[in-house]
Amino acid sequence: MKILVVNVGSSSIKYRLFNMEDETIICKGLLDRIGIPGTVLEYKMTGRDRVNIKKDIEDHATGMKMILESLTHTESGCISSLDEIEAIGHRVVHGGEHFTESVVISDEVIRVISGCCDIAPLHNPPNVVGINVCQELMPGIEHVAVFDTAFHQTMSPEHYIYALPYEVYEEFKVRRYGFHGISHDYVSHRAAELLGKTYEQCKIISIHLGNGASMAAIKNGKTIDTSMGFTPLEGLVMGTRCGDIDPAIVYFIMDKLNLDAKEADNYFNKQTGLLGLSGISSDMRDVMDAANSGDERARLALDIYCLRVKGYIGNYMAKLNGCDCLVFTAGVGENGCEIREKICQDLDGLGIEIDVEQNRVRGMEADISAVDSNIKILVIPTNEELVIARETFRLLKQSL
Amino acid sequence: MKILVVNVGSSSIKYRLFNMEDETIICKGLLDRIGIPGTVLEYKMTGRDRVNIKKDIEDHATGMKMILESLTHTESGCISSLDEIEAIGHRVVHGGEHFTESVVISDEVIRVISGCCDIAPLHNPPNVVGINVCQELMPGIEHVAVFDTAFHQTMSPEHYIYALPYEVYEEFKVRRYGFHGISHDYVSHRAAELLGKTYEQCKIISIHLGNGASMAAIKNGKTIDTSMGFTPLEGLVMGTRCGDIDPAIVYFIMDKLNLDAKEADNYFNKQTGLLGLSGISSDMRDVMDAANSGDERARLALDIYCLRVKGYIGNYMAKLNGCDCLVFTAGVGENGCEIREKICQDLDGLGIEIDVEQNRVRGMEADISAVDSNIKILVIPTNEELVIARETFRLLKQSL
Repeated sequence: MKILVVNVGSSSIKYRLFNMEDETIICKGLLDRIGIPGTVLEYKMTGRDRVNIKKDIEDHATGMKMILESLTHTESGCISSLDEIEAIGHRVVHGGEHFTESVVISDEVIRVISGCCDIAPLHNPPNVVGINVCQELMPGIEHVAVFDTAFHQTMSPEHYIYALPYEVYEEFKVRRYGFHGISHDYVSHRAAELLGKTYEQCKIISIHLGNGASMAAIKNGKTIDTSMGFTPLEGLVMGTRCGDIDPAIVYFIMDKLNLDAKEADNYFNKQTGLLGLSGISSDMRDVMDAANSGDERARLALDIYCLRVKGYIGNYMAKLNGCDCLVFTAGVGENGCEIREKICQDLDGLGIEIDVEQNRVRGMEADISAVDSNIKILVIPTNEELVIARETFRLLKQSL
Repeated sequence: MKILVVNVGSSSIKYRLFNMEDETIICKGLLDRIGIPGTVLEYKMTGRDRVNIKKDIEDHATGMKMILESLTHTESGCISSLDEIEAIGHRVVHGGEHFTESVVISDEVIRVISGCCDIAPLHNPPNVVGINVCQELMPGIEHVAVFDTAFHQTMSPEHYIYALPYEVYEEFKVRRYGFHGISHDYVSHRAAELLGKTYEQCKIISIHLGNGASMAAIKNGKTIDTSMGFTPLEGLVMGTRCGDIDPAIVYFIMDKLNLDAKEADNYFNKQTGLLGLSGISSDMRDVMDAANSGDERARLALDIYCLRVKGYIGNYMAKLNGCDCLVFTAGVGENGCEIREKICQDLDGLGIEIDVEQNRVRGMEADISAVDSNIKILVIPTNEELVIARETFRLLKQSL
């Protein structure tokens, strides 16, 4: 059985075609710069060379058609017909409080996802477009929505309610949702396997450090707290997002720079974080290069970035009353050994000791804890697409 | 030598007259509702009955005159003449980056304190008024400013710089300052004494829970981090302040409720926290009573309040790489044994165990840690006025 996984952004479509018999990847690709001059489709079919096609594409529908044609192309394709694809799994950022797990998409489901656009204005609209486009192009098969928020819906109210007038939650649904749930789900399950424990027995702190970054405290198989909140702006320092700040700074800066709500959203989501601090780049590799070349602001950016993660490790250890393991994942988490070392430095007082030699690993599973460390430190490459494919497969079998 | 300590708010003057030979209090009082109908002066001279005078007072100058007259009143006063007061110590909320310690007040000092009004619009203006009024009424003596921010000026940049464009710090001085420094200073020094260690050897987490609330991580005699930030809004849940929230919530709510910066400042500082959550009161005692009577929202408010403190304990343990002791102080910290118990519950995984019996103490110094607890838990009533008097005395001796 073949399942296509799609992740639609405002100007991009990421996709992977899986063979679910052995969970292997048949093809993976990215169509980028949709609606922007210089659209590029880049894909790689297993056993073949990487393909790169430059062709301006106006909208997601045309883009999706192009992707499907590339999959079924008589000479360069990897499947003989679209009929081989039995379902499509869609990554959806925000499921609000409605979706505590993945769901087969119906008109009602689309209506509810659209209803979340008010609280996820950047993310859900393209997801809805992606679902509509795929349903039109492939109407005869099941479409499944897998949510980035669903994994965290196990949180209890004292963890997800902010200390605001309670009516703000009731009326506007302002609460902690958390994101990156698909990734935290994957790596925490895998961590339990590697620890040789059942998932329900583990206390895990999952640390997803990509361009976006978040952490989750997982106990007895459930998220009890996570660092992203109402939106993906809260928590850790990210490429272009500040994470936690004094709330008073928001209106102070809006007043000084004369920003309205929409401009403030852009400012705090796009111009702060590593980019704002370093003045150089939102990319951790660039910031590290600059820091290593002696750039003071880049060095400060790294210090602040790592200190924030360290603080959350302690925060979550308190809420978990201890911890079995830390898991690093996503771009920086999987590849940034210097960052991992810096975060774990001087934590032996909490039973966390990294093995500097073992830590010299990039992009592969590894146990990087020192022999004496009470708490295991693992690197686990995330695989959100596989989770989406598995969820789609599971629901497909149920609905058959 | 007698020293008067004054703490001037927008509509109040709190004061204490100390005899510095033995650090005893000669008189303490509060003039409240200045400029509001129903002004009340309440004071208590040692060995005498409490006095309560109701008389509408228009401004701080008139109010201060009334206080000084009460001190020197031929029949009911406690000193024969104002000449007995050798100096006045003023509590000043915000010293910005200029003041890393207390200072004898000059015209230049007043100018700099006034310059901080932009970043402390609620607090510094009445402090400046208080200094001016006292200098006019008692021109021949030294006036000393003791700052709530100065104690935290030992923080290093990775702890005080937010992950915002660096120019926001350079241009607008947006950074973490921290407050309640006078209180954290007092209780952490006292904690070191009680532990029988030198201050410079200790790792202390100081937990000031009053109507305002903040925590400080103190290592080798220096604040390394503290929970209040650019303003006193950040960090813990307080009586009417939310503390940490997703920054995106600020402009989301401003947009929904149509608030400008000034209205937002009022909203987040006056209508959130325990008051907003419970819908009942900003006073912890009222919220606890309601929770004990079965009110669900009050119960939730308590849970959120305690969980926030617990998270910060872990956060600071990570940054300190362990901890020698927790100190609870201020109204709730000194008297709220149920709150202390709830905060310290399920922290044995981090070496923190409370003794439930010993913890049944209110308003007095106590060691409330269990015998097995790796980390001491202390209750220490704060004494900000005494710190201000001591600082004033110290500077006075230096300047003589």
